[in-house]
Amino acid sequence: MTGKRYVSSTDVARLAGVSQSAVSRTYTEGASVSPTTREKVLAAARALGYRPNFLPQALMSSRSHLVAVAVGGITNPFYASVLEQFATALQEAGQQVVLIQIDNDYALDAVLDRIAGYRVDALVSSLAVLSTETAHALSDLRIPVVCFNGRIRAAWVSCVSMDNLQAGAMAADHLREAGGRRFAFLGGPPDSPASQDRQAGFEHQLQRLRLPKPLVLPGDFSYEAGHAAATRLVAADPRPDAVACVNDLSALGLLDGLRRAGLRSPDDVRLLGYDNIGIAAWSAYELTSFDQNVPEMIRRTLRLILDDNAADEARQGVLETVPARLVIRCTTGRAGAPCLGI
Amino acid sequence: MTGKRYVSSTDVARLAGVSQSAVSRTYTEGASVSPTTREKVLAAARALGYRPNFLPQALMSSRSHLVAVAVGGITNPFYASVLEQFATALQEAGQQVVLIQIDNDYALDAVLDRIAGYRVDALVSSLAVLSTETAHALSDLRIPVVCFNGRIRAAWVSCVSMDNLQAGAMAADHLREAGGRRFAFLGGPPDSPASQDRQAGFEHQLQRLRLPKPLVLPGDFSYEAGHAAATRLVAADPRPDAVACVNDLSALGLLDGLRRAGLRSPDDVRLLGYDNIGIAAWSAYELTSFDQNVPEMIRRTLRLILDDNAADEARQGVLETVPARLVIRCTTGRAGAPCLGI
Repeated sequence: MTGKRYVSSTDVARLAGVSQSAVSRTYTEGASVSPTTREKVLAAARALGYRPNFLPQALMSSRSHLVAVAVGGITNPFYASVLEQFATALQEAGQQVVLIQIDNDYALDAVLDRIAGYRVDALVSSLAVLSTETAHALSDLRIPVVCFNGRIRAAWVSCVSMDNLQAGAMAADHLREAGGRRFAFLGGPPDSPASQDRQAGFEHQLQRLRLPKPLVLPGDFSYEAGHAAATRLVAADPRPDAVACVNDLSALGLLDGLRRAGLRSPDDVRLLGYDNIGIAAWSAYELTSFDQNVPEMIRRTLRLILDDNAADEARQGVLETVPARLVIRCTTGRAGAPCLGI
Repeated sequence: MTGKRYVSSTDVARLAGVSQSAVSRTYTEGASVSPTTREKVLAAARALGYRPNFLPQALMSSRSHLVAVAVGGITNPFYASVLEQFATALQEAGQQVVLIQIDNDYALDAVLDRIAGYRVDALVSSLAVLSTETAHALSDLRIPVVCFNGRIRAAWVSCVSMDNLQAGAMAADHLREAGGRRFAFLGGPPDSPASQDRQAGFEHQLQRLRLPKPLVLPGDFSYEAGHAAATRLVAADPRPDAVACVNDLSALGLLDGLRRAGLRSPDDVRLLGYDNIGIAAWSAYELTSFDQNVPEMIRRTLRLILDDNAADEARQGVLETVPARLVIRCTTGRAGAPCLGI
């Protein structure tokens, strides 16, 4: 596209019959400008549709008020909700969000040039930083970086996570209390720290309770993977009667797959997930789930990236965990009260 | 947060023992710099973790390569999917997305200062521009603005929409062919152009077919509104047996509400929605839906905001429509084959 865009401060100065510096001072808080000049500038700005330009100040002050938010797969309702809450909170704090959409095809370090190019003040990533190489490249930017549900800590790189080990253990306790005797774990991508920790906490607690090892079903966080896992679960002998799923989306797929096979929840199979997405409460599912307390995770993240009092922590990098909260619904409810009252 | 961030070109120049201008030329395509100098600069940049700054060029060239994308309610899976596809396409075109999250509480014109402040090259909005005042304020920015599923056209302001009138008429035809005799329309927010047009197309086609007027149920695009509408539908006398829902999310709520009331689809109530979100295909629902052909809508939008050949159209503002595609699933399928094979 060619041609001139946006009315400039020079255009306003010309119409108002004042200097460009007078226009600039009119829009700078605390700067000195006479009431008459100010009035002329504002009238000309209104007439021309002028809006101040933030870029010069971003260049001068080394604060762009831009925060990069990296996400992969916002069609997962959990990440959509996290992004929405983040964007709202950052806007309220006077920051603007630069959205970095990352496919599974390429990693965070492939987009560092673009993140750095706009001199963003901080980076928040819903993707875990998986390699120390990426962590060091992020350290070199010397801006606060916060990852959700990761485990790597480096200079300038922090993680804010649900306590996944504890939440895994809580799943074992709850499924046993709900009457489960033969357990299974539906996993996520093998390199996901959240999946690894939920599974480790689950297995460790079963061991402590002197219960048999769980059947581990492979998955990838998707509805489709959960649906496919149902076939393997139904064919298992003995068939598990209690399944902890690494997230809600795959739990919903598993539940639909079990129903297709003629099984009912909770009577035949007790089931729970993680994330507490909105759909978990829909009356076709009523899925028991762990709530990650996203508002608290966002509060801690904003503190690390925006609060001067947290500057030392942000520079060193910290690991913070937020306790999970169990939301009990029909899929681990009382026997004889089948889900989906239809 | 205080302290210096990001390695600057001056830092690199000092370490390399060259001028700052030599650093700048090394990173400017086509600029002249000797191989020796270039090598010194790149070595110093690697040692310091330097990344080029895009902001000076954004200021000089009046092209920021930033595109603002305004969304409201990305927890609606349709908008999450639209945003994901947009962000991917814009990144591939070398643009970066500034995400503007808009609550229902305030309108697009409340965030114009922030959009203009970063001198974005274009604005794409998943929210319809509703008032001529907002349209004129957008015209004043003199950048291409494209709204999804809106109707207002002004200088610099275009809309790319599904053909909502046609898709409303197609719903009437399809529900009648599926055996419907008494019709209902579950609506969206009253000021939504998409909702208005789908309803108008639906009612007009019923009239053409000499069928009775539909019962109109109020809604707001949400699952909860659909669930609540089920109570009204069940109580209606005569009870409608074919419902066009303004979007999938409210159709899924209506379907769950009908099941709770002991009704089955398609035998008791034929049902369809709009958007063809992923959940519509889940085996608990198998909802018939209209696909908006989002990839085509995105292609047309990118042309209007990025293609020099479309500059005149973008400046004048155009209305473009994309035909809807009906995806037939169980909820309007053959009688005696109930959805949710469980």
